[in-house]
Amino acid sequence: MASQSNSHPGPERIFEAMFAHQRTAALKAAIELDLFTAIGEGADSVSTLAWRAKAPERGIRILCDYLTVVGFLTKQDHRYALTPESAAYLDRRSVTCLASIANFMTLPEKIDAFKDLAGVIRSGRPALSGGAGSISPENPIWVSFAKSMGAMQLPAARELARVLDAPSGRKWKVLDIAAGHGVYGIELAKQNPNAEVFAQDWAAVLDVAAANARAAGVEGRFHRLPGSAFEVDFGSGYHVILITGFLHHFSPAENENLLRKVRASLAPDGLVATVDFAPNEDRISPPRAASFAMEMLGTTVSGDSYTWSEYQKMFRDAGYSSTELRPLPGSGHSLILSRV
Amino acid sequence: MASQSNSHPGPERIFEAMFAHQRTAALKAAIELDLFTAIGEGADSVSTLAWRAKAPERGIRILCDYLTVVGFLTKQDHRYALTPESAAYLDRRSVTCLASIANFMTLPEKIDAFKDLAGVIRSGRPALSGGAGSISPENPIWVSFAKSMGAMQLPAARELARVLDAPSGRKWKVLDIAAGHGVYGIELAKQNPNAEVFAQDWAAVLDVAAANARAAGVEGRFHRLPGSAFEVDFGSGYHVILITGFLHHFSPAENENLLRKVRASLAPDGLVATVDFAPNEDRISPPRAASFAMEMLGTTVSGDSYTWSEYQKMFRDAGYSSTELRPLPGSGHSLILSRV
Repeated sequence: MASQSNSHPGPERIFEAMFAHQRTAALKAAIELDLFTAIGEGADSVSTLAWRAKAPERGIRILCDYLTVVGFLTKQDHRYALTPESAAYLDRRSVTCLASIANFMTLPEKIDAFKDLAGVIRSGRPALSGGAGSISPENPIWVSFAKSMGAMQLPAARELARVLDAPSGRKWKVLDIAAGHGVYGIELAKQNPNAEVFAQDWAAVLDVAAANARAAGVEGRFHRLPGSAFEVDFGSGYHVILITGFLHHFSPAENENLLRKVRASLAPDGLVATVDFAPNEDRISPPRAASFAMEMLGTTVSGDSYTWSEYQKMFRDAGYSSTELRPLPGSGHSLILSRV
Repeated sequence: MASQSNSHPGPERIFEAMFAHQRTAALKAAIELDLFTAIGEGADSVSTLAWRAKAPERGIRILCDYLTVVGFLTKQDHRYALTPESAAYLDRRSVTCLASIANFMTLPEKIDAFKDLAGVIRSGRPALSGGAGSISPENPIWVSFAKSMGAMQLPAARELARVLDAPSGRKWKVLDIAAGHGVYGIELAKQNPNAEVFAQDWAAVLDVAAANARAAGVEGRFHRLPGSAFEVDFGSGYHVILITGFLHHFSPAENENLLRKVRASLAPDGLVATVDFAPNEDRISPPRAASFAMEMLGTTVSGDSYTWSEYQKMFRDAGYSSTELRPLPGSGHSLILSRV
């Protein structure tokens, strides 16, 4: 049988891909119906889950069986249970719960952007926001991003604070470019009581970051720079400039322009900390960093998942003399440290 | 590392599911751009593929890298190649090519039906065709089905003809319920020169089946019964009645009604041949048959992927005395043979 299936592979992977959109829809629906929390609390039968979700049993049963097939639940004698992964990241009672990321990652307009991907590829323009993509001015998807994606970034933000030795308490002026939820800058401010954070993003996005700063007790050292990263006046004298999950939206030429502007805002001994995907030079590994380019194809005009050598060139061409790559374990991202 | 990842599983499966919709979109786009045929013919670089597809290089590169990450291509030294599976089923020059199934399986209205799956589950109504789902009268998605899905069913149709011993040449009156592409009945007519096939489906769908019958040289023994399977007069005296990929759209009660009507149309020694998914009683295996229930949740009011025991009950309650289950190797489907 094994040799037969090697010489005559079946089309299973093709069928799986044709139906793969249902995997996104099912996980989103289960999060919205809060099934993982319910199962974690012991509601393990179709009838109990249907009662809790106020939904007919047929849909709950089909959804739970599907989630079992794709590995988010287990099933034994008609009873469902969480997998270790679902318990850690999808049950809202877990401190490491990531369920909120579904709000941003499965935004209907982002899913729709992939409806005619062949057309997007032929035209070279994303179907999102009238062809401008996610980076159009004041695009409301970034408010959703800021509200939803902070929890997921927390481990990477803590690792960054450790690498930069935030607890040393050095006097820091920090610029957080495209701050979003603000988690990276806020974590530096939490760990370094002598850090002042200036967060740049669209005004409506900064409202979310400011609320997070308030919740973290650092609102007195959190300052807003509303507007486009390419246009707003950053000011100068920054010891640390954060560029997290931002450069992948733009072309190398656009990034070089921004990095020149960033350079002009740095203090003489300042450091630029870039957090982003950086796939290997083969562009096909590791899977998450490499395949993130597809998200940029669907939602931006010229974004990409850049390799380390591409980042090196951008920083070098923008006038930086030293650039260093580090892994950010567990986050899927890399950390790039650059100095003038 | 292994024990650490067991005790602290990462959220990789969650990220993969959030982005899984892109897998459907990417395979669809690659088929529409005919990339697999181009690569099969030796166009193995981004520049050549972009030239052939008349598309900018960025999108072609990102798509090909993505297809490599998810296993449809290989990449070595900037050159792409087909996997054995892609060569067999996605290169249009292959006699076993299944590329056409993307037309039906990724229909925008089918993808849209999963946009608010939590809402579908709560309401118990699919979002497709104003809540009526895919079985609404004259629903045009079945024309797309008939045009796209015949090639995929051919191996199962041939296996069915073998099991029924079509080459014996017995005088057969065949009823093909919800014939679609007509491939099952047409294969019986091809292999048995004494078979007359009566195909039932919506009129526009039968136009497609009739064209297939003409192409197969059996148009003289292909007859049309346009209308709903629940309403059209089948006539009587059928030796073989085919119900392929149909019962999964309806509730057990609706199916019992139909099976009673079918029974009244059978010749005394007649046989009902049902081809459908039939997952194990656990409803979570095998994966393809089990997860097909999700397609029925998204696109029908009361359809399902029924187990063998549920099919047995439907046939028994509809007055059949003997029912037998057989695998249809390679198709993912089962064959259910029933007699009065």
